[in-house]
Amino acid sequence: MKRTPNIKQIIVPGFSFSGIKSGIKESGGEDLALIYSETPAVIAGVFTTNRIKAAPVKLALKKISSNKGQAIIINSGNANACTGKQGDKDAREVNTELARKLGLPSEMVYVSSTGIIGRPLPVNKIKNALPKLIDNLSPLSLNRAATAIMTTDTFPKLVSKRIRIGNKTGTIAGIAKGAGMIRPDMATMLCFLFTDISLNAKPLDSALRKAVNRSLNRLTIDNETSTNDTAMLMSNGKLGNTPITKSSPYYRKFENALSDVTYELSRMIAEDGEGATKIIEVVVKGARSESDAEKAASAIANSMLVKTAVYGRDPNWGRVISAAGASGAKLVESKINIFFNTVKLVSNGIGTGMEREAATLLSSREIRITVDLGAGKQSAKILTCDLTEKYIEINAHYTT
Amino acid sequence: MKRTPNIKQIIVPGFSFSGIKSGIKESGGEDLALIYSETPAVIAGVFTTNRIKAAPVKLALKKISSNKGQAIIINSGNANACTGKQGDKDAREVNTELARKLGLPSEMVYVSSTGIIGRPLPVNKIKNALPKLIDNLSPLSLNRAATAIMTTDTFPKLVSKRIRIGNKTGTIAGIAKGAGMIRPDMATMLCFLFTDISLNAKPLDSALRKAVNRSLNRLTIDNETSTNDTAMLMSNGKLGNTPITKSSPYYRKFENALSDVTYELSRMIAEDGEGATKIIEVVVKGARSESDAEKAASAIANSMLVKTAVYGRDPNWGRVISAAGASGAKLVESKINIFFNTVKLVSNGIGTGMEREAATLLSSREIRITVDLGAGKQSAKILTCDLTEKYIEINAHYTT
Repeated sequence: MKRTPNIKQIIVPGFSFSGIKSGIKESGGEDLALIYSETPAVIAGVFTTNRIKAAPVKLALKKISSNKGQAIIINSGNANACTGKQGDKDAREVNTELARKLGLPSEMVYVSSTGIIGRPLPVNKIKNALPKLIDNLSPLSLNRAATAIMTTDTFPKLVSKRIRIGNKTGTIAGIAKGAGMIRPDMATMLCFLFTDISLNAKPLDSALRKAVNRSLNRLTIDNETSTNDTAMLMSNGKLGNTPITKSSPYYRKFENALSDVTYELSRMIAEDGEGATKIIEVVVKGARSESDAEKAASAIANSMLVKTAVYGRDPNWGRVISAAGASGAKLVESKINIFFNTVKLVSNGIGTGMEREAATLLSSREIRITVDLGAGKQSAKILTCDLTEKYIEINAHYTT
Repeated sequence: MKRTPNIKQIIVPGFSFSGIKSGIKESGGEDLALIYSETPAVIAGVFTTNRIKAAPVKLALKKISSNKGQAIIINSGNANACTGKQGDKDAREVNTELARKLGLPSEMVYVSSTGIIGRPLPVNKIKNALPKLIDNLSPLSLNRAATAIMTTDTFPKLVSKRIRIGNKTGTIAGIAKGAGMIRPDMATMLCFLFTDISLNAKPLDSALRKAVNRSLNRLTIDNETSTNDTAMLMSNGKLGNTPITKSSPYYRKFENALSDVTYELSRMIAEDGEGATKIIEVVVKGARSESDAEKAASAIANSMLVKTAVYGRDPNWGRVISAAGASGAKLVESKINIFFNTVKLVSNGIGTGMEREAATLLSSREIRITVDLGAGKQSAKILTCDLTEKYIEINAHYTT
């Protein structure tokens, strides 16, 4: 789904960004990004649940408990995963060298990588590019950073939102990369978020976890969890508000705004799913438990048969009901209702014969499949995209 | 993977078969099959674990505890699933009418269906075709029955094996259909097995379950479990041997031979996976438990990224290790070894750089991916196929 994003000029006070070409990508595209806060920021992060973790993720996991950070360097084109002790050393070297050049203690710097697994990180290319990367830092360059973290993404993903905190207006912004190897088991791919709103470390962490659970963890492209998945949130407090605590009246407001930002980034990732032509939102209601609702929604959203049917504009509800039935979620066949957008295709477990009406709706770019399991009151929502020949083409021939 | 099967003339004493066109399939192909034993047979069956079960499956589940049967009628082109009370009535009507025409009590007859979900079973077409179906019964027509149960299969699947029981030679034969909606959660698709070797009901049932667990349940095409999955085994005792019990010296021999038959049928199903160009055998060793081995093997075999890489002849072991890592199976990164066929691509968690050698091997039609998790001594094996544009094409445009 090619699209020209509407790149707004996003500024988050006290943050500057950079994105350049360092020669890691064979294609010669932008592949090195830097996020920098003028002052020490409070930081939170969630990382892949994959038991195979990339070197930079292992390094970040060691530091994140300090809840402090000031810079994140991200390279695309090489995941620095499955690279053994050398990979760990390489991640540390990039970290140390950048910290030295920025005049920061090395624990204030984080490293993140995405790209092909199992190839040595070209540390020298990265080191050689550091002076230019730092020179290019600008408060106006968030789009460059968003571009430099892309792999098979077709457009950079940036979102921002402003909210009132007392008599001041703060900003939450974020960038993400997605495209493939994505499923809701964790933060999913790379996502970096920044705010000038001041929060204490614990509420910052819990707001991030909540936002990730509501959005990035409810997204699946191909049911794959990568070795490098990372979501990080930095708060530099430039707004000058009283730091938000969990009992603060602004906590919920911040959490919701952050969730809006991550949900919008998730939508962009679904829209840009490898080879996708449509976004699919799967809503499961009437489940006995939230976990049942998630199981069923996830089974439907991950069903290759459902995803290819949507691609083929075929309102094949049989594949939807079969996926729900195989998910393990409790359901009552004679009470199941299924809608494709607004068209009711199944009423009390039986087809309504409205296929023609549904097929017409399937020409739109956004499809919502709603399934009522008839077994309870809980619900869940998952974002995904259709599955096309293009996904196969990209993944059969993409080693990087 | 088109192929011309080597259709051997398979005869199982006392069984006859038929396969004809009844007009259910819009394509006009064969769509009605009959399996008939001259004498009452001992029968065992395993059925889908999907909570949405087709009407014929629900009907069979009610009868199977009798362990008796003499005829199975199977239609393709219509699954008679999600058809409500009318569907149950329709399955019973086919059952009753066939029993009447064969002069059998209705409990000796089983009905099975496969095809599109949610459309009323065309009962009258089936009833009108019964005289011809019965007329065509012949001990030499197993290939016709195998053809009539096909949906998107490109070739009929028949296997037989002869084994010595005392001083006599008995036969075990089977047919199956597969192609899509297949994953190892149950017997998978339709599979019918026949033998002239006499067994008591309990050993027959346990041999079938063992064989299914070793083969059909270790097969995945697209991680989908259908509403109609069925495997049934009939023993008519024509061989005249003393009925085999679980403590009989021949029990294990029978069980192994039956497993060979179902494994060969599983291989044929993998070979004929929708759009497949290669069979992939995923072997996971060095697991802490058999369940861990299965989890990892299943995650790799279901990984769209692994399957597209094999299709693209790309020895992308990063996708294999990432799928294993995300599976939940315990593993020790620094002890992992990965082979593509005989080429070692990962040694103690690190790439060996043998991609070129592996890529050459990937041009063959049968690929074995072996992963040693380095965490224990258990292993598991799963069959699958690659994922190609053709799978998308078939499933984006196939409503029946």
